[in-house]
Amino acid sequence: MMEKCWFEKVVIIGVGLIGGSLGLAGKGKGIFGEVVGVGRSRANLEHARERGAVDRFLHELREALAGADLVVLATPVQGIVTVGQEIAPLLEEGTILTDVGSVKEGLVRELESSLPAGVHFVGGHPIAGSEESGASAAREDLFLRRRTILTPTRRTDPEALARVHAMWEAVGSLVVEMEADVHDTILAAVSHLPHMVAYALAGTLMEMTEDYPDITDYAAGGFRDTTRIAASHPEMWRDICKMNKKKIVEMIEKYEAVLEKIKFQIQGNDFAKLSRTFQEARSLRKNL
Amino acid sequence: MMEKCWFEKVVIIGVGLIGGSLGLAGKGKGIFGEVVGVGRSRANLEHARERGAVDRFLHELREALAGADLVVLATPVQGIVTVGQEIAPLLEEGTILTDVGSVKEGLVRELESSLPAGVHFVGGHPIAGSEESGASAAREDLFLRRRTILTPTRRTDPEALARVHAMWEAVGSLVVEMEADVHDTILAAVSHLPHMVAYALAGTLMEMTEDYPDITDYAAGGFRDTTRIAASHPEMWRDICKMNKKKIVEMIEKYEAVLEKIKFQIQGNDFAKLSRTFQEARSLRKNL
Repeated sequence: MMEKCWFEKVVIIGVGLIGGSLGLAGKGKGIFGEVVGVGRSRANLEHARERGAVDRFLHELREALAGADLVVLATPVQGIVTVGQEIAPLLEEGTILTDVGSVKEGLVRELESSLPAGVHFVGGHPIAGSEESGASAAREDLFLRRRTILTPTRRTDPEALARVHAMWEAVGSLVVEMEADVHDTILAAVSHLPHMVAYALAGTLMEMTEDYPDITDYAAGGFRDTTRIAASHPEMWRDICKMNKKKIVEMIEKYEAVLEKIKFQIQGNDFAKLSRTFQEARSLRKNL
Repeated sequence: MMEKCWFEKVVIIGVGLIGGSLGLAGKGKGIFGEVVGVGRSRANLEHARERGAVDRFLHELREALAGADLVVLATPVQGIVTVGQEIAPLLEEGTILTDVGSVKEGLVRELESSLPAGVHFVGGHPIAGSEESGASAAREDLFLRRRTILTPTRRTDPEALARVHAMWEAVGSLVVEMEADVHDTILAAVSHLPHMVAYALAGTLMEMTEDYPDITDYAAGGFRDTTRIAASHPEMWRDICKMNKKKIVEMIEKYEAVLEKIKFQIQGNDFAKLSRTFQEARSLRKNL
């Protein structure tokens, strides 16, 4: 007997790495019936269709959204609220709306207050990014064993939450529910801060090139690894800083205090303590 | 016709990753005749001999050093001066002494002033480390296309310098000569600072585990890469901080100023400048 798909019609707005991978995975697991792609780049959408991430794509939003069971906002994070508000009047009662944005608190608040009654929003964030982008980078196994955080509020419909939760588990993800505020603190620590740290390190070496033009010739594996994410998209990270400003600033300050402690231990010849500081940091890293 | 080896008898003191790899590479290229290993761990020395990194090993220093053409100090960096001073009285006129330490200025000064007349010291640093250690990690191709920095002084014998230079080139390294002071500034920027940055980042996450015990579950590829070198050996890095204290502190302060600039741009909503800051950092990283 043929099982009914969990979502007969899925609309993915923004068919890049995350949106494209979700299309591939949902089709692959048989939980999506028809997948309709919406996006700005026709070439990217055609590529997504060739790869089977979407069945078809449309530019007319009303037609795309008609009868959708699930709509996934998967554009770059700064565009999610705008696109969500643009499509809000076109969403039908019973449609589930979700997103994949990497900053949640303000986004969830703004989207929830923009939706017509009967449209159920569930904030989400699959932690599965990379420096790659576009449908060409999409992979069916992108979410396998990766965390997905859902950020329900008092207003979230329990059934819609359960269905989005089950969807991410079906594509292999480890799903956790938490408050948007907690999500933004955790992501500031494990993702946003490391990007600031990497940009600052590459920026420091950039300043050194004034006096030592060939200095990058001496940058070995350690420098390369530590700055790899400084190759990330500047505009995307500008927007993440804008959206999670308060928590990123707090996290930079927490980090500065730890670095100051290291500096004082070196300056003060407190090498026994310095060794313990390194030892603790190492044990955290080794237990990842 | 059989070419004469460049160095008939080579003594490597400390047959770890670097010393062992140099033994393998020098034998492999036919530029070393006999290689004698000296070290504290018999098991490691036996392993080095089995792998062909040394032909034999000795514990009696006088016997090991007798008639040596080249002696390589390849112990952990904090032990190099002590070992060099210990063997100084046993070195014969004409012997070339070199080292592989990752901090150079104080080390070169102290060693030069400790050697008997006629023993020629050449400070060196092959930039080819890794988190691995011991003779079991040694590889014949470790130095291939990696930089080796030599730090001659006014007192360095030109012929000894030329021979050590040629040796590192023979094992595949790109050799550059510079002042020890410049070496220490460059290494503070490209290697020592990234380690401090990575330890501080892992240390910050460690502090976050007090309020968020499961926070490391959310650490993805970016955090892992940025903190990989925080798994490095705490005692080794304590000693590097001790030996290159002034320049490491200066480099941390330079880095703190760049990170403060980023923080102020976020706090001050100066997102156009923030984007340019990220863009510049990214272009440096992409050109590595």
